[in-house]
Amino acid sequence: MESKSNLTNVKLGENVKIYDFVNAYGCEIGDGTRIGAFVEIQKGVKIGKNCKISSHSFLCEGVYIADGVFIGHGVMFTNDMFPKATNADGTLQTDAEWTLLETVVEERVSIGSGCTILPGITIGKGALIGAGSVVTKNVPANSIVAGNPAKLIRIIKE
Amino acid sequence: MESKSNLTNVKLGENVKIYDFVNAYGCEIGDGTRIGAFVEIQKGVKIGKNCKISSHSFLCEGVYIADGVFIGHGVMFTNDMFPKATNADGTLQTDAEWTLLETVVEERVSIGSGCTILPGITIGKGALIGAGSVVTKNVPANSIVAGNPAKLIRIIKE
Amino acid sequence: MESKSNLTNVKLGENVKIYDFVNAYGCEIGDGTRIGAFVEIQKGVKIGKNCKISSHSFLCEGVYIADGVFIGHGVMFTNDMFPKATNADGTLQTDAEWTLLETVVEERVSIGSGCTILPGITIGKGALIGAGSVVTKNVPANSIVAGNPAKLIRIIKE
Repeated sequence: MESKSNLTNVKLGENVKIYDFVNAYGCEIGDGTRIGAFVEIQKGVKIGKNCKISSHSFLCEGVYIADGVFIGHGVMFTNDMFPKATNADGTLQTDAEWTLLETVVEERVSIGSGCTILPGITIGKGALIGAGSVVTKNVPANSIVAGNPAKLIRIIKE
Repeated sequence: MESKSNLTNVKLGENVKIYDFVNAYGCEIGDGTRIGAFVEIQKGVKIGKNCKISSHSFLCEGVYIADGVFIGHGVMFTNDMFPKATNADGTLQTDAEWTLLETVVEERVSIGSGCTILPGITIGKGALIGAGSVVTKNVPANSIVAGNPAKLIRIIKE
Repeated sequence: MESKSNLTNVKLGENVKIYDFVNAYGCEIGDGTRIGAFVEIQKGVKIGKNCKISSHSFLCEGVYIADGVFIGHGVMFTNDMFPKATNADGTLQTDAEWTLLETVVEERVSIGSGCTILPGITIGKGALIGAGSVVTKNVPANSIVAGNPAKLIRIIKE
């Protein structure tokens, strides 16, 4: 099944499943994690064990995913608050000319399909992000948030 | 053109067009329907006749599409209200450990690009869902809804 | 790297970089522009110089992108206000039976990831569209807009 995917310098754990049409490079994927079709994972990304990264999602440089995390379909992470193609003088922007903001997704978080995650955010352990949300600030552990921008719906009772 | 797509156990009607980079398995696609690039269709999905399923969309198990339906680009269906990668004990979740909610899209519905459809929803005949909407409840026939969450804009006069 | 992409009748400038899993046809791409994975670009689209079109984005017929534009990941353009799969009589809709609305993205605009752009819109020079926005009307030059629907946040001071 891996013949139709591009995996370049990917550090794979045991029993990782990667479906077709995946583009991943310079990243780490932990034991038992499954990666769906049409997913791109950039350099420096670390994904924990037993995660599910669903189809059509994009994990950029600066994203760290802990164990047992569910990422739905079509979820877009970001790492630059003011992305630009070029500098003010019209030359192409290089890596030295922007600030990478890191995003941390803690254990057992679930991010619903169709979400966009703004850069520099921490999503606390066990939180659930409703499908179609735009997450613009940190999400407390064990909370449910939803909407654009995502707002607290309730705290999950254990 | 089909050489760059994965079609496994797909029941195809007549004059179906499937573009490249499609991942479809265990589903049914009716006569005259067109499937765009980068689309994933999961097992059990049934798509009617003369539909258009546009690029980058995801149709999950439990989705039933009637005849003459337009699905825009980047539309994400869902089937699980509380998706999780693992159980509380950290083991991988299996098919027996979650509840599939079905979604029905009736005849001649149009779903705009970039929409996310929450699970367990019926979208009534002839309805139009504005681009970029998040649909969180049933949509009446012949209505236009839009927004996050999607709200009724107006009823379409025949 | 281009072996896993489909490029048909694409007019390429100098030093264009196109990643794998791209589906592009009948379009023009200017010097120095980079196109990410899982991007579809339809016929008639013109993209300027030194742009960055990020992964998972969809540029439809009628979209014109000026120089130095940044398009984030998973951005969906549209060109039809009332898309339909079939006509009222149930026959498949043809090109003659709908109105194409054009979208213009001016110089040095940045469109954040996960945005949906309604049809017939002009996004003014230097504007920034926040990630996850749904753009429903024209965007003034040098403004920052965000939300669903996107609203003016502030004007960028030079």
